[in-house]
Amino acid sequence: MSAHIGVTGLAVMGANLARNLARNGFTVALHNRSVEKTDTLLEKYGTEGDFVRTETLQELVDSLEKPRRVLIMVKAGKPVDSVIEQLEPLLEAGDIIIDAGNSHYEDTRRREAALAKKDLHFVGVGVSGGEEGALNGPSIMPGGSKESYMALGPLLEKISAKVDGEPCCAWVGTDGAGHFVKMVHNGIEYADMQVIGEAFDLLRSGAGIEPAEQSKIFTEWNKGDLSSFLIEISAEVLGHVDAKTGKPFVDVVVDAAGQKGTGRWTVISALELGSPVSGIAESVFARALSSQAAQRKLGQEMLAGNEVSVEIPETFVEDVRQALYASKLVSYAQGLDMLTSAAKEYGWDLKLDEIASLWRAGCIIRAELLKDITKAYAADEKPANLLFAPAFTKAIADALPAWRRVVATAVQLGIPVPVFSSSLAYYDGLRRKRVAAALIQGQRDLFGAHTYGRVDAEGTFHTLWGEDKSEIEAVDTH
Amino acid sequence: MSAHIGVTGLAVMGANLARNLARNGFTVALHNRSVEKTDTLLEKYGTEGDFVRTETLQELVDSLEKPRRVLIMVKAGKPVDSVIEQLEPLLEAGDIIIDAGNSHYEDTRRREAALAKKDLHFVGVGVSGGEEGALNGPSIMPGGSKESYMALGPLLEKISAKVDGEPCCAWVGTDGAGHFVKMVHNGIEYADMQVIGEAFDLLRSGAGIEPAEQSKIFTEWNKGDLSSFLIEISAEVLGHVDAKTGKPFVDVVVDAAGQKGTGRWTVISALELGSPVSGIAESVFARALSSQAAQRKLGQEMLAGNEVSVEIPETFVEDVRQALYASKLVSYAQGLDMLTSAAKEYGWDLKLDEIASLWRAGCIIRAELLKDITKAYAADEKPANLLFAPAFTKAIADALPAWRRVVATAVQLGIPVPVFSSSLAYYDGLRRKRVAAALIQGQRDLFGAHTYGRVDAEGTFHTLWGEDKSEIEAVDTH
Repeated sequence: MSAHIGVTGLAVMGANLARNLARNGFTVALHNRSVEKTDTLLEKYGTEGDFVRTETLQELVDSLEKPRRVLIMVKAGKPVDSVIEQLEPLLEAGDIIIDAGNSHYEDTRRREAALAKKDLHFVGVGVSGGEEGALNGPSIMPGGSKESYMALGPLLEKISAKVDGEPCCAWVGTDGAGHFVKMVHNGIEYADMQVIGEAFDLLRSGAGIEPAEQSKIFTEWNKGDLSSFLIEISAEVLGHVDAKTGKPFVDVVVDAAGQKGTGRWTVISALELGSPVSGIAESVFARALSSQAAQRKLGQEMLAGNEVSVEIPETFVEDVRQALYASKLVSYAQGLDMLTSAAKEYGWDLKLDEIASLWRAGCIIRAELLKDITKAYAADEKPANLLFAPAFTKAIADALPAWRRVVATAVQLGIPVPVFSSSLAYYDGLRRKRVAAALIQGQRDLFGAHTYGRVDAEGTFHTLWGEDKSEIEAVDTH
Repeated sequence: MSAHIGVTGLAVMGANLARNLARNGFTVALHNRSVEKTDTLLEKYGTEGDFVRTETLQELVDSLEKPRRVLIMVKAGKPVDSVIEQLEPLLEAGDIIIDAGNSHYEDTRRREAALAKKDLHFVGVGVSGGEEGALNGPSIMPGGSKESYMALGPLLEKISAKVDGEPCCAWVGTDGAGHFVKMVHNGIEYADMQVIGEAFDLLRSGAGIEPAEQSKIFTEWNKGDLSSFLIEISAEVLGHVDAKTGKPFVDVVVDAAGQKGTGRWTVISALELGSPVSGIAESVFARALSSQAAQRKLGQEMLAGNEVSVEIPETFVEDVRQALYASKLVSYAQGLDMLTSAAKEYGWDLKLDEIASLWRAGCIIRAELLKDITKAYAADEKPANLLFAPAFTKAIADALPAWRRVVATAVQLGIPVPVFSSSLAYYDGLRRKRVAAALIQGQRDLFGAHTYGRVDAEGTFHTLWGEDKSEIEAVDTH
């Protein structure tokens, strides 16, 4: 019997994907560098489906039907290159290597190009949903060639999360597109988590609402526009009481947020694309600042607050909910806008409705909102920015008064709300007739002869600042 | 007669540095790929000092005293590598290649390491001040080996800007340190320009003050704490009237800010270092957003403002001045903090007082403020953050009430002030006892078993969320 797919790298994520495949009726050949892990998996879960035990990559490859599908789940970076190097001579034209780890999309692009020259398919697949998702149905974002998806897609769709029977898996684009989309998912996730954190801090410090009570508020919120996995688990975390101290769990946790890199990657990539993901960037920097323990200790001791006392309106909880919703919309708008820029840059035909639909279930940012985003981009006329989709233009207009009140209140009370306020600045920047950049262009022309455009004429101009301040036509040196 | 230094690459920056060297008594050997540029320089400016005309790199090298100093001023990137490749076989142990262009510090580190193996010195030099600075005295930030500075420093110090007779040039650190420091200078410059732009927009849209009147206000501001080149030229730009239309110049300029990349590099590097430069990032993203012309046009048509009308206090102009000053301080604090992180990462012994002193004159961010920053870091006890230096702790505390008022007002009026508000969020985050990151750590532990620390115990912990929610000690997988 030939196996449908091989999996090499059987740490938790790889093992869970293998089990998910087997539970769904596929015969899965297993391989791990040390055979103990393979045997442990077989002992514990061998009855869940059809597994083929192999001890070497050669055995793994020999056990597979053609075109062969070999899924790698090892640590991103050199280990991936090393496994590819070992696999490549064992495979033949048309076979498919699948990297389902957290690889950087530039690495995926490089590997895809190199293997394509040898007639091998290389598919970078973004998988979101953590260990549990991998086992029970993750959101899956495959890149690589369209041809490879013919052979691979049916398996991945089968094991993915479902919404009303539709799989949260679809081919998103060539080469590194899958890992890119997954990276942006994670960037949005960073912002999503931070805005929830800001709402928590506002309710606590602004309105004096304790975590247990907030847990109920979040549970309530989870029934409306904000309905999402992250709001749901926030309710759970906020409601949890520490057994040792009897205090709210969030009060005994060290408030220094870790990060594994994908949020940072998103912002770096956006900077390279010239795409303004300011809210996502603020969420990455908020984590960085939270981790500067020594400076924060000094800051607490030394820096004045000089807060302005303001009245907390009776509508405050609802105001915060609306501000959270609006800020979250902006994070999505920025992330999706970045995908549009990336599609141009890398020649990907990214379909934003499909991508949003992949995120509806299985992944960390899964939310009701994503159904509406999917609809917005499925319309005949695609919005140039998520905020221009009629439903969202209205939603954000409705939330605006509360959003402005909340940010103004936070600023006066001295509560840091970097993403709430950055998102509002983005929104106001996007709708503004004239922005501060006019003066910046003047400064740049004066000190560096960087030239400028005129609102009333084609061409590029330079003012002879050091001379008679007359204007000349110039070569564009932006 | 042997020349003291050779210059290859005689476009404006190279030509001006060569002339600056010659005017200061050094004999300068000139080389350019096409000899016409060399001859033009000699025709026009040959009487300014002692020049040696050469036609080939071999001639250039032969004309120099030992150790040879060859300054390259060509476009960053491959052209630099190409010139190095041609020069290297012509030089001998102990000679010095100087790259005074806008190279990325990682390239400089790579080149320095490669040439060090061949006993050649490679010195990446940050030069700020534009064309005029290059000719009349720039701010100069050399990296490379300390040994090379013995032979090169005296020349660079002689041609640099001066403050009270002290040169704005000093060895900042090994390998790429010079280009790194120059990059951070540019990052601060981006933020500095943006906060001035935000002040302009606030005075215009908030208080209805026209550019001509603002020009007077900026001139006044230039006499106080804000005294700086950028405030000075902003007054000039704001006061300029367009000859064609009779309108204020800033009203006829297309408000889409260009960028050449160093601001973006700064933020990317900060992300890699985990250093929170949120204000600098917002200034880079504000430029990116300003350049999204098509989206902005739609935004103006479609997005609601729902502004809240607020009374503009009589103190508004002074409030804006104080908010500008405080935001500017934060940008410097973030840039300098990033230097501290980089020093650790790259093994540089960066002296922040010396670096601040290099920026006092000659460069774009030159400002009175830099004298105070120099003093703050020259103190026996170095502040862990610029804002902890007593003079600045007090200055920012004094400015706080106005800063909070201005940001709250802007937010309600719908005027985007991304750097004003981001800087305030950073300040409030730095001084805050508990931040939103506690909830984020709870979320991360719940969905990804990323573990957390406890405020009351050493070690790393994980809650069994899916089970009985008991807590276990865990391996740190941050």
